[in-house]
Amino acid sequence: MTKTLEHFTGISDCSTEQLEQLLDLALKISQDISTFENTRTGRMLVNLFYEPSTRTRVSFEAAAKRLGMHVINVSAIGSSVEKGESLLDTFYTIQAMGPDCIVVRHPEEGNAKALAEVAEPGVHVINAGDGTAAHPSQALLDALTLKQNFKQFSEIRLVMAGDIRHSRVARSAIKMLTKLGIGEIRLAGPAEFMPGEVTTAGTVIYDSLDEAVRGANAIMMLRIQKERISGLHIPGGDEYHREWGLSVNRLGLASEGCFVLHPGPMNRGVEIASEVADSRQSLIRSQVRNGLYARMALLLNLTRAAY
Amino acid sequence: MTKTLEHFTGISDCSTEQLEQLLDLALKISQDISTFENTRTGRMLVNLFYEPSTRTRVSFEAAAKRLGMHVINVSAIGSSVEKGESLLDTFYTIQAMGPDCIVVRHPEEGNAKALAEVAEPGVHVINAGDGTAAHPSQALLDALTLKQNFKQFSEIRLVMAGDIRHSRVARSAIKMLTKLGIGEIRLAGPAEFMPGEVTTAGTVIYDSLDEAVRGANAIMMLRIQKERISGLHIPGGDEYHREWGLSVNRLGLASEGCFVLHPGPMNRGVEIASEVADSRQSLIRSQVRNGLYARMALLLNLTRAAY
Amino acid sequence: MTKTLEHFTGISDCSTEQLEQLLDLALKISQDISTFENTRTGRMLVNLFYEPSTRTRVSFEAAAKRLGMHVINVSAIGSSVEKGESLLDTFYTIQAMGPDCIVVRHPEEGNAKALAEVAEPGVHVINAGDGTAAHPSQALLDALTLKQNFKQFSEIRLVMAGDIRHSRVARSAIKMLTKLGIGEIRLAGPAEFMPGEVTTAGTVIYDSLDEAVRGANAIMMLRIQKERISGLHIPGGDEYHREWGLSVNRLGLASEGCFVLHPGPMNRGVEIASEVADSRQSLIRSQVRNGLYARMALLLNLTRAAY
Repeated sequence: MTKTLEHFTGISDCSTEQLEQLLDLALKISQDISTFENTRTGRMLVNLFYEPSTRTRVSFEAAAKRLGMHVINVSAIGSSVEKGESLLDTFYTIQAMGPDCIVVRHPEEGNAKALAEVAEPGVHVINAGDGTAAHPSQALLDALTLKQNFKQFSEIRLVMAGDIRHSRVARSAIKMLTKLGIGEIRLAGPAEFMPGEVTTAGTVIYDSLDEAVRGANAIMMLRIQKERISGLHIPGGDEYHREWGLSVNRLGLASEGCFVLHPGPMNRGVEIASEVADSRQSLIRSQVRNGLYARMALLLNLTRAAY
Repeated sequence: MTKTLEHFTGISDCSTEQLEQLLDLALKISQDISTFENTRTGRMLVNLFYEPSTRTRVSFEAAAKRLGMHVINVSAIGSSVEKGESLLDTFYTIQAMGPDCIVVRHPEEGNAKALAEVAEPGVHVINAGDGTAAHPSQALLDALTLKQNFKQFSEIRLVMAGDIRHSRVARSAIKMLTKLGIGEIRLAGPAEFMPGEVTTAGTVIYDSLDEAVRGANAIMMLRIQKERISGLHIPGGDEYHREWGLSVNRLGLASEGCFVLHPGPMNRGVEIASEVADSRQSLIRSQVRNGLYARMALLLNLTRAAY
Repeated sequence: MTKTLEHFTGISDCSTEQLEQLLDLALKISQDISTFENTRTGRMLVNLFYEPSTRTRVSFEAAAKRLGMHVINVSAIGSSVEKGESLLDTFYTIQAMGPDCIVVRHPEEGNAKALAEVAEPGVHVINAGDGTAAHPSQALLDALTLKQNFKQFSEIRLVMAGDIRHSRVARSAIKMLTKLGIGEIRLAGPAEFMPGEVTTAGTVIYDSLDEAVRGANAIMMLRIQKERISGLHIPGGDEYHREWGLSVNRLGLASEGCFVLHPGPMNRGVEIASEVADSRQSLIRSQVRNGLYARMALLLNLTRAAY
């Protein structure tokens, strides 16, 4: 049997077998969630968030509660963080209260991993986003969403478009899908948004979204952070949409029935047209739902009871 | 049997039978809460609040928890709302996580109803206040409080005083009590605070609180929002209290034992004298307690198990 | 049998027997927490916090949840407090919702006690810090930590160092440990940080930390609030550390194996050196863990079931 995880800090820290095991479990949960409910009664999860977040925090909270776990939310705002306590000391404090899982979101890269290294046995650290580096539970739900809609990963020709350079979502998804043997990953976006060499091994960069989309059977649009656009040689709003947004027409260049994904929150009319977001080809709401299943699978695996 | 509710967006969207059924159930809960506890174990309620609120949020949270439900709080502050996501997209995201009930408070009128219209089957939307339009669960608890203290609604001569125009509490209470067959509703307050024709069908407007109070057997004082007074031809603080506040003397003009209600939070010394708020005729704390019962009844009805 | 507590507002309001009973129970919990879990299922605790706090709020929340209690958090930020409601009215509102325990943190002295005096039977008020006056549950965990490491309180020679004057932690700990018969309490810190006569009965004031530390077998360093230093004739940062911080060298002046405590959050390099905080003599993380046990004991005692 595949080794269960001790922590979940990044896709690179998991074996392919572990990732496949997580996906298989998440798929089972999606088929019959009631079997898994209340199987971790009395366990405790702490959400330790140094950046605001609705969807990720709520998704972990809902996943944990469905499993019967207690959930305690700690936000950096209004906490002893304001009193200047270091992340490490805050972590030690939280850990001393005996949680089973600590979910960490932090604006700086590498922090979840650093905390995992000092965690006591039995305390499992989950990276819910560290800077622009990683967001591995998002990658898990993205992979689950693709798995539900394709026979095998090798047949998927995925376009990821937008601000790849600053996207932890993209970074984790690329690693995850590469490990799972995805057929092709094409990256598209303004030059300033393209990543360096290392992070994109096995991917191909396009400088036209029209070109990238041709023949694709899945397109993942990334959120554009408007404040990032303003300082760069990148067109804003409508103009961005014309060049780099996913419109109905542009989607028409892809394979028939090509699926559309977006991690949210969306800027409708900027990186994605409303008609596309709400179309039958859109898997965007499935992604949110799968976030629940993926995180339940993750918590079950980390807290290692039989299932 | 009366049809259970699908959503609870406004008093006008409920039949009189449905409202009476809710009240009857709330009354039963108030008589023996323990029978109803943990009858919705494992269900999930999300509080989606775009305005700050203690009492309403906590009341729904307490009601849900007493029923055994999981509760997840989402506040617009520190959420993806800040990232510019639309209300509708946030709602779809929350909904995709599989809650049974979504309680929405929003500063703009009509939003809860709009969300109810797009909700998936099995997801019940509750309006916890939309702009100045409606606050129907408050009307429910107000009606319950009156029901506990009068033999029948037809014998009630109720004064509502203060800023009727901007009060969703007043608007919902008037609709609710009218449907229940209240004897009389008298509205009193500065001219700028009086409502237009439509919202006040079946009510009588007084331009003197002394006049309105004479012979009344229940008085509901509304909160004065001080920032609203300053721009208008309305006296502030002490002077407001003299003209439009409920003092011991003024209460003395009403029927003997006349009850006093206030939805809170109170401005003591402005719309209500402290002696009145704390007197034996005051039902203000009963209202809060009844908020728990009314919301438990509402959640039980919406989630439609047998009871 | 010793009388259980009705409220927990300050150490002075408890008999020595009651405090010892709490400590004995906390010790038992620390030895086998699982026996006590879920022994208060369905009870409700409200955290009513008028000051930001991570550790105290989370500690009460974790303690209550381990006991199976529902927990509702109310923070003064984003609440009806902003709408000008008085503390007393907010308390009445919370109380009307039927909680078993209300944990209050407030910036002004005496407020928890004032609320306890108006609480209904069956509602237990816990002071989680009022101004600079008291933080009795912190004193409980400090005493528990010492109890675990000494055969008896009479053999303890404790140094408390730093801003005693403004520290509710110090104030409550001194009262608690004096009642428990501690051998000796020595206070050290800049003159501006030393307390008046009354609060320090039974303690000795030192004007040199080196002198105070000699022969001590426990040292509790208090947090320095940097904003307090700036206005006074007190050296900042490094200079403060040289004169009043606990360095490895200074700790070497104490008895061998002298224990180190700190209520957190720490300013490493100011009142305490990192090497000291992380040394084997440090009980700082035990204190946090004991906070959980102490608060579970407190909640069990207040809610008075047999144990």
